[in-house]
This record gives sequence, structure tokens and C-alpha cells, in this order.
Amino acid sequence: MRVVVPFDAAEPKTRLAPVLDPAERREFAERMLADVLRAVAASSVPVEELRVLATTPVDLDDDHATVRVDDRPLSVAVNDVLDETFDADGAGAADVVAVVMADLALVTPRSIERLCERRGDVVVAPGRGVGTNALVVRTSGFAVDFHGASYLDHRRAAADVGTLATVDSFRLSTDVDEPADLVEAFVHGGSRTRQWLEARFDLAVDDDEGRVTLDRQ
Amino acid sequence: MRVVVPFDAAEPKTRLAPVLDPAERREFAERMLADVLRAVAASSVPVEELRVLATTPVDLDDDHATVRVDDRPLSVAVNDVLDETFDADGAGAADVVAVVMADLALVTPRSIERLCERRGDVVVAPGRGVGTNALVVRTSGFAVDFHGASYLDHRRAAADVGTLATVDSFRLSTDVDEPADLVEAFVHGGSRTRQWLEARFDLAVDDDEGRVTLDRQ
Repeated sequence: MRVVVPFDAAEPKTRLAPVLDPAERREFAERMLADVLRAVAASSVPVEELRVLATTPVDLDDDHATVRVDDRPLSVAVNDVLDETFDADGAGAADVVAVVMADLALVTPRSIERLCERRGDVVVAPGRGVGTNALVVRTSGFAVDFHGASYLDHRRAAADVGTLATVDSFRLSTDVDEPADLVEAFVHGGSRTRQWLEARFDLAVDDDEGRVTLDRQ
Repeated sequence: MRVVVPFDAAEPKTRLAPVLDPAERREFAERMLADVLRAVAASSVPVEELRVLATTPVDLDDDHATVRVDDRPLSVAVNDVLDETFDADGAGAADVVAVVMADLALVTPRSIERLCERRGDVVVAPGRGVGTNALVVRTSGFAVDFHGASYLDHRRAAADVGTLATVDSFRLSTDVDEPADLVEAFVHGGSRTRQWLEARFDLAVDDDEGRVTLDRQ
């Protein structure tokens, strides 16, 4: 299996601007990426290639992963990997591609295994807001489109080329995009992500509403 | 197994006030409750008693469930059920209690099965915002407290009385509390919930951000 982790290395996590400055956003995004890569590597999934698909060069502190730089839009770059993999001429190409977003700070080896063990020509892990946070492709003829209601688009596209399955996972459904998502990463995230947040934020409970938020230290 | 579904029948879903009027909120809450009850009844879980724990009397269009009215705060009412179940004097008491919130519009029979099949003296399904959306209790001495960071509180309380397990489920993690949650119910919800929403809202994609929302028809 070829596992692809798209990563916006140029200006990551802009929607966290209300709570993190640009240098912090970059650090935090790299922590989440590191947790995702470790979860994949620590899983029992037979990974032949773990590739970070980055918009600009990025230094990885990870022996398991390689970096390919592709500054085109996300869906174009991922479809290029799919074409390359399922092209009959692709020498030594893997026969399965998994795409896992770099901001899935909550993923564990087990959630990666559940994604990859699920049968189906296309397997989709829905994200909040009708997005697609991870998918597995086992057939040619399928193209991704991550814009908008991508979960519904991917369902339709999968039905055109084969069988579709979904994975019901809180961890895979939670991408860390907005300030409100940070609390999920603080409580349920991988160790690198959690340590980074714990050095800067404390958990706070609003007594009236009972809502849980993060406060800057 | 005794399955308890707490339901605020007096003034349900107040945080949906920006998009639904009081009569709509009540109707919508009852649709979600009906989907939750159907999912439990359609699951393979051996349910001896399916009980709606309602704050005021409620008419159910469901043969499988009974209603008990208890107008005390949620945690007090649920702990009373736990005490009654695990009290050695409780005649014919079940030995396992599952608590499933009434606003889990996305639950399916399979997600209920995953919750109830998981081993552990206490099994918790985390909700967004460090909440607890569902749990299974198989031991005496455990009490719930749904206020605030209840996921963390329940983890600690479980460790005091026995073994703890969690369930990684997008469907169980998604309670429908706020306007932004409606889109999840529209796309992934049970049939009664979806039909109610589809009669009033359309899915819309914001072209700039690619965000998916619901628009009133």
C-alpha cells in the first residue's frame, strides 16, 4: 500500500489565525503531521511507501516517510498519485493508495488499521462538515475532489467505478482546522500534538454552559 | 441490558434557537429520539428494557420503548437508574446499563452494537467538546456527571471502579446541539431526522471557503 499524506507546508492552518501566530501555526502543523506519520508507521498496515505530498520542501524528522513536493492544488496533486499508481506502465507501483490528511491529530495506529482493513474499491472516512478526511482507493478510474461537500462527491464517484465503504471513526472524522477543534487535539491527540498544546494552553470549563475551551497560559 | 435514553421533553434543543422556532425544535428533537430508539431496537444487542428518561411526559410512537418521567437534573436521574440496576435488592434488575443520548441523530444499529460489544466495566463514547455521548456500565460504584469535561471525569471515575474502554465512532461522537451540527444530521442522520430536515433545508456550498451549510428553503 502507498500512503499519501498531503501537507500544506507553505502557509498551514490559516484558519487557526485567531489563536496561533504564523510561526506557531507552522510548528503546530508539523507536530500534527509527525503524529499522523507515526500512527501510520506504528500500525499493522503493510505500507510499501509513506509519502508526504508537500506544497513546498519540508524537513521531516521521520525515517519512514519520503517527501514529494507538488505545488499544484490538493486534488490535482492527489489525482496525479492515483494515476501514477494505477497506470499499468507504473513500474513497481503499489496496488492500493491511502490518502490521510496531515491534520488528523487524533489518529492512532488502530484507526489507520480500521481505515485500511475495510473492504471496498473506495473507502471513505467522512470528516465533519461533509468533508473527506481519509480514503483508500483500490481501483483505477476514481478521482478525488476535496472541495466542498467532498464526502457526497466521493460517494457518487465511487459508485461509478465500483464498491464503496465508509469508516465510522471519531478520530478520522476530526480534522483540526479551527480554534474550536484545538480542544479535541488537546484531549485526544497524538503525543507530539498534545505536548505542544499543553505547553501553551490549559483546559477551561465555562460554568454556565458547561462548555470546554482552551485558555492561553 | 437496560438501555436508557435521556430526553429533555420540556424545552429541547434550545441552542438551535437561531435556526428553529420552539415548535420546530420540539418536533426535530422527537425525530432524533425516534431514530435513536429505532437504531437500538434494530441492533443485535439483547435489550431487556429500552427506557426513555424524560423530564416531562412524552408520547412515543414506538412499541419497543417505555417512558419514565424524572424531572431532576440529567446526572441525578441517570445515577438513580444505575443505583436501581446494581442494587442487590433490585428484583429482576438487568446487569448492564447503556446510556445513549437522544440527540445522536447519526446512530445506526451497527454503532450501537459497537458500543455495547466493547468490553470493559465502563465503556465511554466521547462526544465533541470533551463530552460523553453514550456509555455502558457493567459495575456498581460508578456515577455519571455530564457537566463540563465529562469525558475526562468519566475516565477518572471508571479507573476508580474497574476497567475502562472507549469507542471510536463518528456517529456516536456527533450530538446535534448547535446550528452547525444540523448539516451532519442532514447528510448522515437517521431517516426520520433526515426527512424532517430535507423538507425545510437545502445543502449549500460556500464557493470561497468550500464550507457546507444548510439554507432554509
